[in-house]
Amino acid sequence: MKPREIGITELVLRDAHQSLMATRMAMEDMVDACADIDAAGYWSVECWGGATYDACIRFLNEDPWERLRTFRELMPNSRLQMLLRGQNLLGYRHYEDGVVEKFVEKSAENGMDVFRVFDALNDPRNLAHAMQSVKKVGKHAQGTICYTVSPVHGTEDYVALAGRLLDMGADSIALKDMAALLKPQPAYDIVRAIKETYGEDVQINVHCHATTGVTQVSLMKAIEAGADVVDTAISSMSLGPGHNPTESVIEMLDGTPYTTTVDRTKLKPIRDHFAAVAPKYKKFMSAVTGVKTDIFQSQIPGGMLSNMESQLKAQGAGDRMDEVLLEVPNVRRDAGYPPLVTPSSQIVGTQAVFNVLMGKYKVMTGEFADLMLGYYGECPGDRDPEVVEMAKAQTKKEPITERPADLLAPEWDGLVEQTSALEGADTSEEDVLTMAMFPQVAPKFFKERHEGPRNVGMTEEQVEEERRKAAGLDKALH
Amino acid sequence: MKPREIGITELVLRDAHQSLMATRMAMEDMVDACADIDAAGYWSVECWGGATYDACIRFLNEDPWERLRTFRELMPNSRLQMLLRGQNLLGYRHYEDGVVEKFVEKSAENGMDVFRVFDALNDPRNLAHAMQSVKKVGKHAQGTICYTVSPVHGTEDYVALAGRLLDMGADSIALKDMAALLKPQPAYDIVRAIKETYGEDVQINVHCHATTGVTQVSLMKAIEAGADVVDTAISSMSLGPGHNPTESVIEMLDGTPYTTTVDRTKLKPIRDHFAAVAPKYKKFMSAVTGVKTDIFQSQIPGGMLSNMESQLKAQGAGDRMDEVLLEVPNVRRDAGYPPLVTPSSQIVGTQAVFNVLMGKYKVMTGEFADLMLGYYGECPGDRDPEVVEMAKAQTKKEPITERPADLLAPEWDGLVEQTSALEGADTSEEDVLTMAMFPQVAPKFFKERHEGPRNVGMTEEQVEEERRKAAGLDKALH
Ligand SMILES: [Co+2]
Ligand SMILES: [Co+2]
Repeated sequence: MKPREIGITELVLRDAHQSLMATRMAMEDMVDACADIDAAGYWSVECWGGATYDACIRFLNEDPWERLRTFRELMPNSRLQMLLRGQNLLGYRHYEDGVVEKFVEKSAENGMDVFRVFDALNDPRNLAHAMQSVKKVGKHAQGTICYTVSPVHGTEDYVALAGRLLDMGADSIALKDMAALLKPQPAYDIVRAIKETYGEDVQINVHCHATTGVTQVSLMKAIEAGADVVDTAISSMSLGPGHNPTESVIEMLDGTPYTTTVDRTKLKPIRDHFAAVAPKYKKFMSAVTGVKTDIFQSQIPGGMLSNMESQLKAQGAGDRMDEVLLEVPNVRRDAGYPPLVTPSSQIVGTQAVFNVLMGKYKVMTGEFADLMLGYYGECPGDRDPEVVEMAKAQTKKEPITERPADLLAPEWDGLVEQTSALEGADTSEEDVLTMAMFPQVAPKFFKERHEGPRNVGMTEEQVEEERRKAAGLDKALH
Repeated sequence: MKPREIGITELVLRDAHQSLMATRMAMEDMVDACADIDAAGYWSVECWGGATYDACIRFLNEDPWERLRTFRELMPNSRLQMLLRGQNLLGYRHYEDGVVEKFVEKSAENGMDVFRVFDALNDPRNLAHAMQSVKKVGKHAQGTICYTVSPVHGTEDYVALAGRLLDMGADSIALKDMAALLKPQPAYDIVRAIKETYGEDVQINVHCHATTGVTQVSLMKAIEAGADVVDTAISSMSLGPGHNPTESVIEMLDGTPYTTTVDRTKLKPIRDHFAAVAPKYKKFMSAVTGVKTDIFQSQIPGGMLSNMESQLKAQGAGDRMDEVLLEVPNVRRDAGYPPLVTPSSQIVGTQAVFNVLMGKYKVMTGEFADLMLGYYGECPGDRDPEVVEMAKAQTKKEPITERPADLLAPEWDGLVEQTSALEGADTSEEDVLTMAMFPQVAPKFFKERHEGPRNVGMTEEQVEEERRKAAGLDKALH
């Protein structure tokens, strides 16, 4: 029997350097790999998203739209893929539908093919308009399920969510496991159940991080269950808090009833390219290497943990971490079990710290109150009605049940006006979108844009020098 | 249905530090973890073998027998496990049967429970006497299959070998994948075929390295096929050229029809202990981290590659590596496809270098000639008769077909005599065995033994100092 062909999404141009080196990789360190990536036969090439857009204008003085156009030009044969936070676009608040539509339109126009649309709370209403906008411009709308573990997240809940996404016209479903919590058996069960419920021809893409060391097995089980595409990163930019290595995932399928569309002989130059440039970004690299399995017990992602630690220390209460760790699950339960992912992880974590330091919900953060009152959308489970009352009392705001974006008035014209007043902004809609999503950073970026891209990595000479010194240091010490 | 219980062999005390830090870990950095290891519920604890024995007397000035007795005392509830090179014991030549028997006897007496017996060529005759000796002292005799990939290594060949090992009375079969070549499907097929041929109650242990990034999936598939025990290393001493992380392998089974005998709450102190001591051995650590998948194409293990490179450079022929890489498969084929593992990898690699530099088999190394003439045992496939003739002509030696050890006369009394003449040697049989296996190193060790163990790692102050300097260096550079 002919093996079933599994597609591969290569993450090196977006999530891999976001996870491993704080999204700092400059375009000049990616361009030389693009021809090889384009020729390798990936199902898609993920190359754009909120953090890369942010890093472009905040640190790299690169126009993110220019980056997108360059990718388009250098990879004419590839599906370019982006990660889109539903109604939040690439920013940190809800946008009015007109802005969402405009963003999708311009992204498509500049070369985007596949839009992976997600919402941190898995509230389908926060995805709906973005999905619809993608359909309208004739691009691939991928509806996303954020995977988490809680009493209200059973296989049947994910299947129901997949159904909502398919009802929106999703061209495919992504199962997104940002915390590396997805174990092999649930990976199998969820993929199988979606296929059995909605048909074997529903395309399922699986995105896992490697942090806990179990998810390559999960990819295998997902494939056995029928998954169509899996996400990987070229080996020299893989593992740790990043992703499973492209080469290993391809090799693992040998002899099975599955194969991939990727030509493995094409991967070596891609690997070698990133192995060579990665050391330039050493100072941005996560200290976390190897695997971390604590999250299976604590349910608390690493970033959230260090956040809470520094908050406690700032209050001179560094010794109360144990209490906070016990409080986190309570706060999460009271909030209706949101997945712990940006921004919900910070919101829940900070409130747990507040509860320990000042008494249970004595003081709520504005964000936590908003979460309890529905301003981020529906939470997966029921929110605790007493805590909702306290949020009302403290904020004098009313809880809402409608889609948060329904409260917003059209804002495009105002954004155009704001942007056109800024030094260095041109009159393009792309600039208006930059201003809309990053109002704090955009003005400075527009002003300095003409200076051209900055590479914040080390030069090759500095890398060499560091190698030399480290070798000398080594000798001196031993 | 009650999940099937999978046993775990913890490798941290032997193979993990052998693979990650050149076997240099001193006993004093292991003792504090032993109580936790003993309580965790492992199927066995691997803690002894050729390289650890060698490192003890060569670098650490530790008596390896004393190390074994200490492990025995500190882990009274655990099966202690060792790796034994069949008729080679822990040394580099064939020993006469009396010495083999004596070694097994003394090892058992000093506390060893499980003997994993292997031969680099998979010649069962090289395992037979060691296996028999283990049975005689009533310990667990584990017969080993070295996994490799070649035209003469199909599933049926491994099944046949397993049969030979079971005929010898093997209490279990180990499938040993030292080069991380074992992909998921062959792992499944081999385990399943052995079980189907010889019965579901044949115990199968699977040992994989992590180097290529596919073998955790292989462990999963082996378990699905019926494997009873898998080998892992605690996460802080895992991955790279080492092994899959214990915690991840345990977590990966959640929700499957399998569970483990290990209490996962007991693993944290073990992990934290080794995370704390590992930095002391930084200078011995392999520069290889992450995954390396080249071996799937080249069939050449990393160590063999660097060996051949330095041989070429020494001859001023560093530019001829490509020719050597093309010659390696030819030499391996001519020699009957030995697994490429110590010592066969060095023998084949060096001959490939000689062939390129001096013409095909114009000059044979003594070791390669011995391999061709049967002095290491039977090779898996047929050896090239023309090359055998050339080996005869060059060495004036006759090819043999009998078991190499059959050529040896009793040697114990001579070894006793040799040893008793050495300064610092006591009259114990353990010392005679040390002398037998490491005649070059033993005399110096006996002389210096009274000075007591040396820890060749950095002190904690040096580790701290290196951290401080590296941080300063970092600052200075950025
Ligand atoms: Co991700
Ligand atoms: Co090993």
